[in-house]
This record gives sequence, structure tokens and C-alpha cells, in this order.
Amino acid sequence: MSHRSRLTAVLVDVPASDHERAAAFWSGAFGQKGKTYEKFPEYVVFEEVTPGIEFMVQATGDATPRIHIDIETDDVEAEVARLTGLGAAELERHHSWVVARDPAGVVFCVVTVQNKEAFAQHATSWD
Amino acid sequence: MSHRSRLTAVLVDVPASDHERAAAFWSGAFGQKGKTYEKFPEYVVFEEVTPGIEFMVQATGDATPRIHIDIETDDVEAEVARLTGLGAAELERHHSWVVARDPAGVVFCVVTVQNKEAFAQHATSWD
Repeated sequence: MSHRSRLTAVLVDVPASDHERAAAFWSGAFGQKGKTYEKFPEYVVFEEVTPGIEFMVQATGDATPRIHIDIETDDVEAEVARLTGLGAAELERHHSWVVARDPAGVVFCVVTVQNKEAFAQHATSWD
Repeated sequence: MSHRSRLTAVLVDVPASDHERAAAFWSGAFGQKGKTYEKFPEYVVFEEVTPGIEFMVQATGDATPRIHIDIETDDVEAEVARLTGLGAAELERHHSWVVARDPAGVVFCVVTVQNKEAFAQHATSWD
């Protein structure tokens, strides 16, 4: 069984105390009003800042801001196995996604398909 | 005069000691052989990991790995002025690009147009 994956999102992670002003800045930077969801107040979502790429500003419990990327896939387990086989390390499991780090310590997430159209068109197949 | 800008690249910045294995990992992750340039050995470049977005693994002098993004524009001065007006702070100037940080401290760069086709199609105009 082959599965597929692609880069789907860039997330700015900031301390909760900086969330509002960071979200306001990126809203202006991309010229989009961010979407918020009552159930997930920690995210401000900018859809497709360029086609196929979502941008989010996330409030975290960490004091140090950072950027991380999300890789979307139609098989999270297979994609995590592929990437750990390439040298990534799994850090945490959440509901439907896995937090991992690359060999240098850069954090990224493996998530379920977020953008069906872009995924159908542009995901890479792995055998 | 209006100018334009768009998100063009995601860069993984790692210490030089981790450059080779981080580049090898992301090469496998995206299924692309990275390009290298004799004049710029600090970059391994993966072109359009998804259409319109370039991905690079850069060796830096910093011990702490991170991800930063590049915003391409047809007027670097005007774009930096726009973004600092929104709350960014300018950090450094290089040849043709400017390093800045958002209000939470997240570093990004403002660069000249890197991807003419995607820029022509997808850049946002600012008045």
C-alpha cells in the first residue's frame, strides 16, 4: 500500500501573551482577516496565504516563539514510519497528529489531510 | 506606487555540524535531491516542494535550529516599511534582503522576487 504526503501549513507558535499582537501582525502582513474557532481559541488561521499553503498563529505554553511546519498525509502512521526511518524522532502524539523533530531538532507535525484539493493535485506518493 | 509581496520560501536553519544530515533528511522527506551552489555552500535548495513554495536547509552560525520564512517582493524597501509599520522590527541588512522579526520575536526575511511565475500569479498588491 502506498501513501501520500505534502507540505500543507506554516505555523507561527508564540507565547499566549503575544498571541493577539502576533496574529494582528500576520493578518496585516498577508492582508487577510484570520479565522478563529470557538473550540480552538489557540489558533488564528489564514487560509492559503499562497495557494495550497495555510498559515496559522498558534498560542503555546512555550516562552520561546518559533515556526513549525505541518505535513499532511492520507496515512499518519505510514508517514511517521517513513520519516522516522529517514532520521526523524517522534516526540508526542495528539488526537490525530504526531509531533516529531528532524535530525537537527527542528519540530514539525504529521497531520491528516487538511486541504483535499491541493492534496489530490500535489501530494507525493511513497511506495 | 503600489508594490506586491508573497510567501515564497520555508527555510530550516541548522548549525553547520548538522547541515548534511538535516539536508539528507529533508531530501528524503520531500523526495527531491536538493540543489547546491558552489558559491553558496550553506544552502541546500528544494524547489517547489509544493507549487510556489521553495524549501531550503541552511547552515548557520547559530547553535539553535529554527525555521524561518521568506517573503518575496518587487520593492524590498516598501515592503519592509509596510511590515515595520505593522509592528515588525528590522534586525539586519544583507546584499538584497532584510532580516526582521515579528512582534513575538519570530524571524523572517524580506527578499527580492525569487519565483517570477508564482509572484506574477499570486502576489498581493499593497497601496
